[in-house]
Amino acid sequence: MIENYIKTISNLKSSLYQKDFLLTWKKTKDELEQILYIAEVIKYLRDNNISVRCFDSGLAISIFRDHSTRTRFSFASAANLLGLEVQDMDETKSQIAHGETVRETANMISFMADIIGIRDDMFLGAGNAYMREVGKALDEGYREGVLPQRPGIVNLQCDIDHPTQSMADLLHLKNYFGSIENLAGKKIAMTWAYSPSYGKPLSVPQGIIGLMTRFGMEVVLAYPEGYDLIPDVIELAGKNAKETGGSFTISNNMEEAFSNADIVYPKSWAPYKVMEQRTELLKKKDNDGLKELEKECLANNARFKRWECTEEKMQLTNNRKALYMHCLPADISNISCKQGEVQDSVFERYRIQTYKEAGYKPYIIAAMILANQFEEPAKIIEKLYKNSHKRKVS
Amino acid sequence: MIENYIKTISNLKSSLYQKDFLLTWKKTKDELEQILYIAEVIKYLRDNNISVRCFDSGLAISIFRDHSTRTRFSFASAANLLGLEVQDMDETKSQIAHGETVRETANMISFMADIIGIRDDMFLGAGNAYMREVGKALDEGYREGVLPQRPGIVNLQCDIDHPTQSMADLLHLKNYFGSIENLAGKKIAMTWAYSPSYGKPLSVPQGIIGLMTRFGMEVVLAYPEGYDLIPDVIELAGKNAKETGGSFTISNNMEEAFSNADIVYPKSWAPYKVMEQRTELLKKKDNDGLKELEKECLANNARFKRWECTEEKMQLTNNRKALYMHCLPADISNISCKQGEVQDSVFERYRIQTYKEAGYKPYIIAAMILANQFEEPAKIIEKLYKNSHKRKVS
Amino acid sequence: MIENYIKTISNLKSSLYQKDFLLTWKKTKDELEQILYIAEVIKYLRDNNISVRCFDSGLAISIFRDHSTRTRFSFASAANLLGLEVQDMDETKSQIAHGETVRETANMISFMADIIGIRDDMFLGAGNAYMREVGKALDEGYREGVLPQRPGIVNLQCDIDHPTQSMADLLHLKNYFGSIENLAGKKIAMTWAYSPSYGKPLSVPQGIIGLMTRFGMEVVLAYPEGYDLIPDVIELAGKNAKETGGSFTISNNMEEAFSNADIVYPKSWAPYKVMEQRTELLKKKDNDGLKELEKECLANNARFKRWECTEEKMQLTNNRKALYMHCLPADISNISCKQGEVQDSVFERYRIQTYKEAGYKPYIIAAMILANQFEEPAKIIEKLYKNSHKRKVS
Repeated sequence: MIENYIKTISNLKSSLYQKDFLLTWKKTKDELEQILYIAEVIKYLRDNNISVRCFDSGLAISIFRDHSTRTRFSFASAANLLGLEVQDMDETKSQIAHGETVRETANMISFMADIIGIRDDMFLGAGNAYMREVGKALDEGYREGVLPQRPGIVNLQCDIDHPTQSMADLLHLKNYFGSIENLAGKKIAMTWAYSPSYGKPLSVPQGIIGLMTRFGMEVVLAYPEGYDLIPDVIELAGKNAKETGGSFTISNNMEEAFSNADIVYPKSWAPYKVMEQRTELLKKKDNDGLKELEKECLANNARFKRWECTEEKMQLTNNRKALYMHCLPADISNISCKQGEVQDSVFERYRIQTYKEAGYKPYIIAAMILANQFEEPAKIIEKLYKNSHKRKVS
Repeated sequence: MIENYIKTISNLKSSLYQKDFLLTWKKTKDELEQILYIAEVIKYLRDNNISVRCFDSGLAISIFRDHSTRTRFSFASAANLLGLEVQDMDETKSQIAHGETVRETANMISFMADIIGIRDDMFLGAGNAYMREVGKALDEGYREGVLPQRPGIVNLQCDIDHPTQSMADLLHLKNYFGSIENLAGKKIAMTWAYSPSYGKPLSVPQGIIGLMTRFGMEVVLAYPEGYDLIPDVIELAGKNAKETGGSFTISNNMEEAFSNADIVYPKSWAPYKVMEQRTELLKKKDNDGLKELEKECLANNARFKRWECTEEKMQLTNNRKALYMHCLPADISNISCKQGEVQDSVFERYRIQTYKEAGYKPYIIAAMILANQFEEPAKIIEKLYKNSHKRKVS
Repeated sequence: MIENYIKTISNLKSSLYQKDFLLTWKKTKDELEQILYIAEVIKYLRDNNISVRCFDSGLAISIFRDHSTRTRFSFASAANLLGLEVQDMDETKSQIAHGETVRETANMISFMADIIGIRDDMFLGAGNAYMREVGKALDEGYREGVLPQRPGIVNLQCDIDHPTQSMADLLHLKNYFGSIENLAGKKIAMTWAYSPSYGKPLSVPQGIIGLMTRFGMEVVLAYPEGYDLIPDVIELAGKNAKETGGSFTISNNMEEAFSNADIVYPKSWAPYKVMEQRTELLKKKDNDGLKELEKECLANNARFKRWECTEEKMQLTNNRKALYMHCLPADISNISCKQGEVQDSVFERYRIQTYKEAGYKPYIIAAMILANQFEEPAKIIEKLYKNSHKRKVS
């Protein structure tokens, strides 16, 4: 199997080398599949105590402009597995920094960096832009001889996309349904769900509809009126679906979305108009305005408490047993809150599945790093496989 | 010597492999001795520039639910020595989290974890329970295929025991008195001592009486009336003493405890009843109640200022030169405070000894990790010894 | 070239081994040159994908008593390159700790430390003293058998000197002007410049005049009346200049300093008398006093807004194109502030040069570590060069 996977990786046409991974829709289908296969081989090697270390030293810089535990650990795990040491750039106080500061800082932290992971999802219109700005600064630094290499950038979540999450989700689906080909025609319901908190980013639903429409799936996006995503991504999802023979529809009815679905992904988010307002208020440091907005939004959310993934709704799905997905942590009714995104018994039934879903993320990130760093990733993995150097002595 | 030690390690009956190290009294005497010998061999190898690296990559997760410098560095040192990279899970704001949060987080941070070190000593009844809860979550994760391995857990201090401290103390005693056998019959006075601060955990005195009674020592626990430790541990210490031919007695007189002692360990702690109250108040976030309790306790402490390890009291000990021990930092009179646990001249005389005592901790932790991770630790260390790969090139 | 450099390193008389690097003026010229050449060889090896790893495990402790991004990353980069893992000792709340605390902590964090990097620049009279105090504690720990090795100390900025910065600056000058010999006779203007903030440390200007006077340069120090540096360093710079055939003069006129200069280094700092006052107020935690002092100083600074590195002033320099230097971040007029140290167009023209200047720092630090840790650094680097083990597989 592994040898076949390596062959597949080698045969897929890809120009991931030295290219930042910012949006799944800027990558070809072959490139996305290459990432999946590399991730699987890395997982196989790790599971079989074969070292995947391809750096004897080197730094993986992480810039988190928002709190994070699981993505932080996934990035650290991936980096460590390949032989890179994580160095955190502390920017917890999320700011909208531009211009000289970004340009300079990007270079100052990169003299010995091989990869940079960035999470910046708080400000609509700013997160992805920041990553591109860092990228341009690195291009200049490398071109001008400041940097001995151009470190790659991996988007660990921005305002638009969350590619390490959606790709981990895709790998989970691939293995759950047996193959990528099997995903064609499967119905996935990416639906809004009620949560007692507010301001959750749009990157997960956007990432899901932007990616799953690439593989011929029947993608339904459902949300209460007003909870729109960024129009550009909506447009893109429609275009993707047309090109791959799948479909993309929007519904304002959770039951309709669940009806006959093979996969359900119920998750809270804030309307992009609200995220826009919030970004403006954050920029102005208008704390009163922010409190007012939060109050309004929570009140609005509360009108849609019936948007919960219940046993009853699960009965509507294909064979009554659609796969439940979540990027975690979920707001579980009676467990993490009084009422939330999902009924406790539904979550409990799929709990281990959601853990497995999350478990692909470190491997996806490792694959993204490897594909960014090596022109012929298949050659590198084959070498690691043949060497069979043990990760842990025995 | 090293070859003999390795043989001893190999001959000791032990099932430390894949078992968490949470309480010394849940381990057999053979197992405890195995840890000591592994620690000594690792120290020998490190001192002789022989690499003890047995992982080429891998993560050691640390969860500190309380501030810590020396334990943090000891854990990091041990992990690094074996080839693991430390990744901190930031939980400085100690919370009593239970249920789904613990279960999920334990898995989310463990996809590539080999070992997890936890310090949680603030809440009576909660610290050790938390570690066991994490352990169960990891068992499930491994059983269900979420985790490729079951990471081991090392207790870096809980509400009940502080095994890495007490084992380091034991190794110090072994080397100070020449052998483990020599400890039988030695009198150790684990005594309360005055400190101008309050709320110090019980884990050190409990750890000491729970461990030293395993080796035939004459253990005296002394404290002012009311400063009781957890009853279960008291009972256990008595049982241990009976089984090993040593003794365990409680006294309310510091002089009596020091009389003819070979070792004295004067250290402040809070009565377990107070720790229980404090836990309740912390749970309720009752800040006024906490302040009130602190005031009361400090006032009560102040009644026992004569519980100081003075030159005068040291004169009562065996040959007037009992070994003074402390887990550090000590409250030294006229140095770190006006009046504290120990007179400055006494501390100064034993200062280097206390540093050496502390110096065993990284090696004890490394030994615990190694014994947890490898079924035949003797085989692994022998291999490292024979390879003699240099830690630092030359 | 590399072989010649290695020969040079081997021929230079040096006793850097096991000596802390605290002040450039406590090192011989040969030793300083040795650091430069080691740094260059390490850079060459890294640029050519040859591993510089000489530790298979080991810790590099960093103690930052002040916020820092670039020095932190430089230290981490250097440590990682050599195979050491950085462990941060969190002392962000800068305190003036002395005596037992320093002595004990120094040992507690060093059981497995190979190198310790310290930054402590806030308190005049305290930073360098703290480093020496740590050094003495380590001497004792090693002598008394507490520590298996004496970790080296690298000064990452103190109240007196900033040797990793000034040495990186020197390496930049060496490469810019072609050789160390070429620096003799070059005029460098280390001048104060206006900044809208206050309290910037003196270590950079002091480091520059203390180092550049060692190489026969014409060093001019310029500042508005009252903005004096520590008298000892001034005296030292004069003495250095005499010994090396260069010159050291002080001017209160920025134009005069720029006139015919080959290099200009315009940078804000606070008068050392103010830093003394500030230290006293910080010790007393006199917040009102601190605010008052800040107000006074900012008002005083504002009197010297014309101390800006403008295009006009640059016209006065040698051939109108002196090299502009800065330790970054600079206060750039119209970019990082309304008016600051340097005119935007001047900075932009030299921006890439300042990045390159900064880019030498990780290599300088790596060289300092290597020279501290190995008795014959040339032998070690030659071995690394001949082995040509790849840093990144290919």
